[in-house]
Amino acid sequence: MSLVVQKYGGTSVADTEKIKNVARRVVATREKGHQVVVVISALGDTTDRLLELAHSISRRPPARELDMLLSTGEQISVALLSMAIHELGHDAISFTGAQVGLITDSTHTKAKILRVEGGSIEDSLRQGKIVIVAGFQGVTVDNQITTLGRGGSDTTAVALAAALGAEVCEIYTDVDGVFTADPRLVPEARKIPRLSYEEMLEMAATGAKVLQLRSVEFARNYGVVIHVRSSFHEGEGTWIVPAEESMERAIISGVTHELGEAKVTVQDVPDRPGVAASLFRALADANINVDMIIQNVSEDNRTSISFTVMKEDAEKAAQISREVAERLGASGVTVDDGIAKVSLVGAGMKTHPGVAAQMFEALAERGINIEMISTSTIKISCVVRADRVEEAVRAIHSKFGLEKGVVFRE
Amino acid sequence: MSLVVQKYGGTSVADTEKIKNVARRVVATREKGHQVVVVISALGDTTDRLLELAHSISRRPPARELDMLLSTGEQISVALLSMAIHELGHDAISFTGAQVGLITDSTHTKAKILRVEGGSIEDSLRQGKIVIVAGFQGVTVDNQITTLGRGGSDTTAVALAAALGAEVCEIYTDVDGVFTADPRLVPEARKIPRLSYEEMLEMAATGAKVLQLRSVEFARNYGVVIHVRSSFHEGEGTWIVPAEESMERAIISGVTHELGEAKVTVQDVPDRPGVAASLFRALADANINVDMIIQNVSEDNRTSISFTVMKEDAEKAAQISREVAERLGASGVTVDDGIAKVSLVGAGMKTHPGVAAQMFEALAERGINIEMISTSTIKISCVVRADRVEEAVRAIHSKFGLEKGVVFRE
Repeated sequence: MSLVVQKYGGTSVADTEKIKNVARRVVATREKGHQVVVVISALGDTTDRLLELAHSISRRPPARELDMLLSTGEQISVALLSMAIHELGHDAISFTGAQVGLITDSTHTKAKILRVEGGSIEDSLRQGKIVIVAGFQGVTVDNQITTLGRGGSDTTAVALAAALGAEVCEIYTDVDGVFTADPRLVPEARKIPRLSYEEMLEMAATGAKVLQLRSVEFARNYGVVIHVRSSFHEGEGTWIVPAEESMERAIISGVTHELGEAKVTVQDVPDRPGVAASLFRALADANINVDMIIQNVSEDNRTSISFTVMKEDAEKAAQISREVAERLGASGVTVDDGIAKVSLVGAGMKTHPGVAAQMFEALAERGINIEMISTSTIKISCVVRADRVEEAVRAIHSKFGLEKGVVFRE
Repeated sequence: MSLVVQKYGGTSVADTEKIKNVARRVVATREKGHQVVVVISALGDTTDRLLELAHSISRRPPARELDMLLSTGEQISVALLSMAIHELGHDAISFTGAQVGLITDSTHTKAKILRVEGGSIEDSLRQGKIVIVAGFQGVTVDNQITTLGRGGSDTTAVALAAALGAEVCEIYTDVDGVFTADPRLVPEARKIPRLSYEEMLEMAATGAKVLQLRSVEFARNYGVVIHVRSSFHEGEGTWIVPAEESMERAIISGVTHELGEAKVTVQDVPDRPGVAASLFRALADANINVDMIIQNVSEDNRTSISFTVMKEDAEKAAQISREVAERLGASGVTVDDGIAKVSLVGAGMKTHPGVAAQMFEALAERGINIEMISTSTIKISCVVRADRVEEAVRAIHSKFGLEKGVVFRE
């Protein structure tokens, strides 16, 4: 009997009717002869409502207490899903993160998973039960409740799949899989049947919302096969699998975009060794994830450094940068939240040097100005004005003919 | 530095403004130099809303999953209160029942407290923190979340006060204390300044809603001093203390009433040894609390047995009674939910045999029919029609002149 981990997001359990639908889907999997572990998020907008409650009491609620509060969202949904499965005549048992021994570090609201003890899950599976686990949450070694932050439930699912040796980790979502571009922007975008971890990592890192970066990293590190699929029908979605040498590799996987970032610029910094280190060490110590980093060519031994961070971190990043800037003798720090990032991802592009040029041409043809560029072996990202990003995505998608079918390497 | 345990009910934390009020009150106690442990219930009608959610999914949700669901209510309120206290510049930390090691048996939805480990509370108090504990919930030895059922938060507070050796357990409520009768029915009712555990037990058992029976039993068993007081002002409420020989003892403490019970009658039972035992063993095994029990005088070796239970248990009690009745050859079972119980409580009445007669006269003078009578050394209860109970309470209160002052023993 093979073990399947299924993860359903907040929109899949937004109301009691939807919870009953998820219960039916879970039971159908069980009746096919699989052992099933289900990870779910909080119901619909529960997390937002809890955050609102917290902010009506405190402008800066302590992170530990925020975790205490937010973790109730998933606890409610697991209990309700378990009831719905019982109602269908199957035996189910719900667990909090603490109860399954999902041990994290103590970085409240952004905790990282250290290990999964999982004993209670295995006992329950042996007893023939369907196991339902609260996503997004864990517990420190000294029994403090933590939450995993952005993408937490996906990461919970992948971590459980790794710990339990599941055959597959199914991520259910309201779209059919991973697409060559956001279908709301590009109606001709195609579903990608198969992606390597590396391609999916770049897609996620550059704005594909369907899977969270952390969960893909976790899957890659532990070799967990992910199947991203629709919660509305039985059709195949996108498989995320290890890259195989024999695998035919598409040059281009897709075009992604990200509107959630802001650009911080430290102006007129003395160009001497250690400057960038001081700045990014300070940001790292404050647990701020920096995405793109650009340092200008030095003039008169002075330079400027720009970087992008998530918008919610921008204020904090700017404040830290101002402190560092003052110490370093920089002239000032500016924040620009009118930017967007458009990226082209594909594991095949590293052997095709013309890809970058073709992408820049697509933007130039539309008169879209590029403000920052960042490349890796399998992606190219450009920062443009936020109000031009949809046009940019469409232009690049069409330039590479992604609507016509997979672009294979020769 | 003395330790005070304070308990605030759901109406005291019904919205964020009220939570802030509770925070101010807690901080004021801390600033007087006390160590403070706060126990709170779920916000306002949260528990009802969660129950509604559960019942929209399942007519009979499994008790374990119900506990998983309901326990989130208190977890939300402790986190919010902790944030509100931080906002006032004091250090606070919130805990679930599981986190403070409030260990219960595994009777889900009605769990009994086995012990309180409390280590995390003592550590936090030593660090100068205000400790906030989720009422109404605990955890089994194998880490399953339980709830304590009716009166659970009061019991949590008293259990913590006992375990931590608190000076007093303050129960905050929306009334000024314990009264000689419900002031909504009897405007002349007086606040009782001091009651023994035994008197309070009978008051609670017979319908005084201000304190739950279980918590008073717990307080008596472990010698915890309770102060029932208003959450709206600083005035003294009612102290619940051990009975002292030297204490002047009022003959009558008060008149209580209870509308929450139903009467179940097993008719025409063969009158032979073991009949009552079979019936009440079956009810006890189903965890149904039986209040009054009356067995009629036997005629032709057949009798009838009536008992009262809480209305929400009536259907289940009737079903069990029908099974037992069939086995015993009884003719049938009836349920009557149009009853109410009016009781007179007072530790002094045992040496005053005229008290019962005077109570029955008060009812007779108003033409109120008595359907069942039950007595103990310190209380007399009568079952009457529900629609006559308010009149009955007023009649008895006035008959004993309780509005005039404490009726002392000679």
